[in-house]
Amino acid sequence: MQDIKVAVIGTKFMGRAHANAYRQARAFFSCPVRLSVSCGTNEKDTKEFAERFGFSRSITQWEEAATATDVDLVDICAPNDLHAPITLAAARAGKAVFCEKPLARTLKEAQEMLRTVEEAGVPHMICFNYRFFPALQLAKKLVLDGALGEIRQFHALYLQDWGLTPGLPLTWRFQREKSGSGALGDTAVHIVDLARFLVGEITEVTGMLSTFVRERRLPDGSGLGRVTVDDTAAFLARFQSGATGIFETSRVALGRKNFMHLEVNGSRGSIAWNAEEPNWLRFYSLDDPPHLRGFRQILVTEETHPYTKNWWPAGHILGYEHTFVHAVVELCRAFEEGRNPEPNFVDGVRAQAVLEAVLLSQGSQRWERVPH
Amino acid sequence: MQDIKVAVIGTKFMGRAHANAYRQARAFFSCPVRLSVSCGTNEKDTKEFAERFGFSRSITQWEEAATATDVDLVDICAPNDLHAPITLAAARAGKAVFCEKPLARTLKEAQEMLRTVEEAGVPHMICFNYRFFPALQLAKKLVLDGALGEIRQFHALYLQDWGLTPGLPLTWRFQREKSGSGALGDTAVHIVDLARFLVGEITEVTGMLSTFVRERRLPDGSGLGRVTVDDTAAFLARFQSGATGIFETSRVALGRKNFMHLEVNGSRGSIAWNAEEPNWLRFYSLDDPPHLRGFRQILVTEETHPYTKNWWPAGHILGYEHTFVHAVVELCRAFEEGRNPEPNFVDGVRAQAVLEAVLLSQGSQRWERVPH
Amino acid sequence: MQDIKVAVIGTKFMGRAHANAYRQARAFFSCPVRLSVSCGTNEKDTKEFAERFGFSRSITQWEEAATATDVDLVDICAPNDLHAPITLAAARAGKAVFCEKPLARTLKEAQEMLRTVEEAGVPHMICFNYRFFPALQLAKKLVLDGALGEIRQFHALYLQDWGLTPGLPLTWRFQREKSGSGALGDTAVHIVDLARFLVGEITEVTGMLSTFVRERRLPDGSGLGRVTVDDTAAFLARFQSGATGIFETSRVALGRKNFMHLEVNGSRGSIAWNAEEPNWLRFYSLDDPPHLRGFRQILVTEETHPYTKNWWPAGHILGYEHTFVHAVVELCRAFEEGRNPEPNFVDGVRAQAVLEAVLLSQGSQRWERVPH
Amino acid sequence: MQDIKVAVIGTKFMGRAHANAYRQARAFFSCPVRLSVSCGTNEKDTKEFAERFGFSRSITQWEEAATATDVDLVDICAPNDLHAPITLAAARAGKAVFCEKPLARTLKEAQEMLRTVEEAGVPHMICFNYRFFPALQLAKKLVLDGALGEIRQFHALYLQDWGLTPGLPLTWRFQREKSGSGALGDTAVHIVDLARFLVGEITEVTGMLSTFVRERRLPDGSGLGRVTVDDTAAFLARFQSGATGIFETSRVALGRKNFMHLEVNGSRGSIAWNAEEPNWLRFYSLDDPPHLRGFRQILVTEETHPYTKNWWPAGHILGYEHTFVHAVVELCRAFEEGRNPEPNFVDGVRAQAVLEAVLLSQGSQRWERVPH
Repeated sequence: MQDIKVAVIGTKFMGRAHANAYRQARAFFSCPVRLSVSCGTNEKDTKEFAERFGFSRSITQWEEAATATDVDLVDICAPNDLHAPITLAAARAGKAVFCEKPLARTLKEAQEMLRTVEEAGVPHMICFNYRFFPALQLAKKLVLDGALGEIRQFHALYLQDWGLTPGLPLTWRFQREKSGSGALGDTAVHIVDLARFLVGEITEVTGMLSTFVRERRLPDGSGLGRVTVDDTAAFLARFQSGATGIFETSRVALGRKNFMHLEVNGSRGSIAWNAEEPNWLRFYSLDDPPHLRGFRQILVTEETHPYTKNWWPAGHILGYEHTFVHAVVELCRAFEEGRNPEPNFVDGVRAQAVLEAVLLSQGSQRWERVPH
Repeated sequence: MQDIKVAVIGTKFMGRAHANAYRQARAFFSCPVRLSVSCGTNEKDTKEFAERFGFSRSITQWEEAATATDVDLVDICAPNDLHAPITLAAARAGKAVFCEKPLARTLKEAQEMLRTVEEAGVPHMICFNYRFFPALQLAKKLVLDGALGEIRQFHALYLQDWGLTPGLPLTWRFQREKSGSGALGDTAVHIVDLARFLVGEITEVTGMLSTFVRERRLPDGSGLGRVTVDDTAAFLARFQSGATGIFETSRVALGRKNFMHLEVNGSRGSIAWNAEEPNWLRFYSLDDPPHLRGFRQILVTEETHPYTKNWWPAGHILGYEHTFVHAVVELCRAFEEGRNPEPNFVDGVRAQAVLEAVLLSQGSQRWERVPH
Repeated sequence: MQDIKVAVIGTKFMGRAHANAYRQARAFFSCPVRLSVSCGTNEKDTKEFAERFGFSRSITQWEEAATATDVDLVDICAPNDLHAPITLAAARAGKAVFCEKPLARTLKEAQEMLRTVEEAGVPHMICFNYRFFPALQLAKKLVLDGALGEIRQFHALYLQDWGLTPGLPLTWRFQREKSGSGALGDTAVHIVDLARFLVGEITEVTGMLSTFVRERRLPDGSGLGRVTVDDTAAFLARFQSGATGIFETSRVALGRKNFMHLEVNGSRGSIAWNAEEPNWLRFYSLDDPPHLRGFRQILVTEETHPYTKNWWPAGHILGYEHTFVHAVVELCRAFEEGRNPEPNFVDGVRAQAVLEAVLLSQGSQRWERVPH
Repeated sequence: MQDIKVAVIGTKFMGRAHANAYRQARAFFSCPVRLSVSCGTNEKDTKEFAERFGFSRSITQWEEAATATDVDLVDICAPNDLHAPITLAAARAGKAVFCEKPLARTLKEAQEMLRTVEEAGVPHMICFNYRFFPALQLAKKLVLDGALGEIRQFHALYLQDWGLTPGLPLTWRFQREKSGSGALGDTAVHIVDLARFLVGEITEVTGMLSTFVRERRLPDGSGLGRVTVDDTAAFLARFQSGATGIFETSRVALGRKNFMHLEVNGSRGSIAWNAEEPNWLRFYSLDDPPHLRGFRQILVTEETHPYTKNWWPAGHILGYEHTFVHAVVELCRAFEEGRNPEPNFVDGVRAQAVLEAVLLSQGSQRWERVPH
């Protein structure tokens, strides 16, 4: 297979995570990917970034990155309001698209993106990277193997506290017109995706959004500006299967850094996992003898576990960045097998539909059906 | 002070926990309480129970226990549908009343009970025993001392799995006319009380109740009967203070035995606690130097901690039953100081009002205000 | 069976723990034990103690307690230097003896005690109470069932920090002539017993004792006195079976309160346990499928677990004091079955022999055989 | 500063970890390092390895790698018996040397290596990579800041179970003439180094080595061969400062994968850390108010923590491989500042001296002084 030439648009947190992922996927998994074009807003920084990670060249106009001849795959790590325009341009130019989450600011925008990539017939993927922790891949396997039986309850708390950092400026993440929503789209979207990954489709929700820090420093130093998105979001959910779910996320939960705690309870087994100790999966099984039942703490680093044998021996833990590498591995495998990768824009749209229903319920103060 | 003569109505799980509590409160805290009358439905069992715990006598009619001359305090460990009639009889006979939770089956019933004890001018207390874990007393102190700052978020999961025990009969706990509700009134009521204890009044809620095991074995062996209460209950809440809350409880969360996990996030500090490791309080403080911040795991067994110096040296852990002993200690202190104990029927009514609003929201599919 | 009439000698920490144990064993396990005589040095305090726990009478001379006609069992909670004289007097008077650990100050003394109770033909038991945590009873069952396979390694750290309490007086626990040794006899003896309980006899050791706080306040306020025992003790050990062991204990391990951490590794399974979370047993089994292996955290409170069904439903945790209750239950069962209880003075002597060899090795700076 | 041209000798576990480290140090920390020569025994594999990680060329003779003109730094990831010859050749050719642990098979060999690099005046470093976990860098800072006070006790258990893998062949790691020792040199050496890093020099030890699996499959399939090294090693130690230490390591501790558990207790504070959850440091401080003391669980991923701001935002955990990257960062900083990196061959020799004394004590059955 020929190398897939990649353009990465964005050079900040996500840009770095993605650029690193392609390099590591090539080194550790022999993935045929090549860093071709780096695109950022600041010319000097982008050039330096490109050299650092080994891109062939750097540019400052995403329109160019999205359509360049030395690009097969456009990887979008830009702010949320650019996801749609870049996707549309790239797809129409016949490029594959790998987009950061949330797919878009609104469901309508997300649907348009999906329609466009489908019409263009290009491969598409969304970066719900948490799916790719080996522990969550093992969790999925347990679900598919029936080890949990019929799933009844899903609980997820995703708590961070960076929103409390003193002097934090009013970046695009705090502006509804750029980001669509706050913690809801930024962090809750991950637990929505993991809920869908492990339990299935969500059909109705009712939610509550709150903003505790209402004004933040304007980046240009001209005073304070209004925060127009949520700091916290919580919602109840019903799944198609009859299972129930509760979801909560926060940027202002003091003391929690990347505390994404999941628990799934079924009729034959249960699992629990936390992103602050992501190499461990907890698993409880009715198949154990009654006096020996308990949550097993499985250190998911064995050769028999997903992805791990390409890294280090058992017990040597993997970090956050490895999830992006595994996402690229999935992307490459899909390319090789001629199928669309998973998760893709369909998953992006479905997660967006849940967010949209939560926002709607906040206004209506009622349960809302998740649009289909 | 003269001994308080106690009648305990009920001889099962709660009857035992309460009978033990009075004995231990006398031995370890010099509380002036005396076990006078034990009351149960089965004469022989009740007699044996009475001997075991050192009651002066045993009877089988609660009406007698509630009004006997050798009784100062009536302690109600009977099924929920008897809470009101016993309270009314006891209060009218001038007895103090100590009642298990939930206070009643409905808010109306609870309000009548409160009105009656207030009109009778008798002391009243409700057994929200979890407040009396030293770790939660310390948590309360932190809140009062301002160590958490302004509280913004409250999260509570209270998960058990005994509802999945094969062959479990259809006891009163599964029948709405006897219990009022299922997991909601049985277990969620504890986290509602702890939320009020730590954060304050709840003003609105929206909830979701589910029943996963819909039929259970009739106790008389005549087949299966319908479960008319919830197995799981989850709800979102808004507090008077502006804080938000999520609550979930379950009897069918496989693998969780008495997993009551609380977390409170404030603007200056956060706390976390779990009833499966109840001697530990986790506390995060902004007052720590930035590079040394983290949740402290405080083993709340030091001499400086509430209640603990009457027991064992530091590090020697206390169990579930000690909460009941401490509740009796509070009851006796209140008697000595001529004040009503806390928590009392006012707390019982307020918790019941929250449950009622949750039940209402389940029907209306909307947010509901908590009645005042 | 007739009631066993008990004299408890000592009214401090251990006196209280034992007095409570008999009461609770009677209430919760129907054990035929009766608190007859309480014996302490201070007349007024002992009287108050006796009333509090329901003893028939109180006295101040242990010689009387050891030989009184209203006593069947003499329970020794006095300082270590009194263990031998009380045992000798009691045994010669035909009383059963239940003695706190360590059995004696020296091996010679311990051997004399054993010889005496055996010659007198009286039942004898030593209070290695930790064996009686349900989790450690379950551990023993796993060993006996072969679930660990051939045991290869035993590790135990038993860390406390009360020795660092400012102003702590030079009590008998810091004087070699009264206590025999320091942390070695006080706390290491527990892990020696648990090692024997789970793994078998220890045949050789080499150790290191240290005293970090060399002088302490004299109780009479007349200045400072010299500490003549160890604050910390560590030793390596070989078991008869070929297994190896490491042991460490400390009174000055800042931050650790009652941190007794055990781990046993075998050829088919491993277990781990900690006294600061004593209701949990960790168990790893080769019998699990490779991709699902991990230490199970078993909350040892199920009906199927040892002792627990007499207490509370699953998940409601037990505390430190319950171990003493279970020890009394074992004592009563042995009486009923006409056998000597376990652990008894033979176990006391064997543990003492290990301590003695450790002390010897500290002097010789060599490995020493454990005397037989 | 000009690029440092690196030859990495070895292409297996450690070869990969080191090759990756240089690449990532360049990308994430702007380190001026360039992968020049990859050297391995199998030509085809080495070529593929070299391409994967971006080396300029690949060779199969270490003698060439050690002396090539396009090499400034020789990085030794070969079996232990090659550490000395490669070091000698490289140093004499004026190359800097970065060597995997243990430095050598014997103390004498290690001393010769140190002498040679010192005489040659070349920079030298040993890969005690665990020092470079941010949590352990923070631990060191706490020690230096006096936050622990006077250190009294050091405990380390380093447990793995890969030695129990069925069918594991008799590689060089099981042969004394190639490896010097077994678990002692392979894993105990890490905790010896960390003890020196945090507490200081060790002056005497007494130890116990055991081999539980005595024969293993010969790699050529011709039957079984004898294991001539230890599976487990435990020893007691005294530090120059008066502190005491216990150390244990194992390859056959079933269920433990990379369980390196450290605890350091001082007069003002204590710390604990485990390599299976390496992003967390536990810290207990006497400076906290008495009722709020407890081990803080610090997630060492904040901007204020060592090395972390070059990676990801707070809470996004780092893995095992990052320690190697940080080691390379230290190496480059030392080069830039014209000083020798730390830890270096002096540390390698001192750790080796401790291992040697442990081996000696195993024979003599006595305490042995650590040679100086």
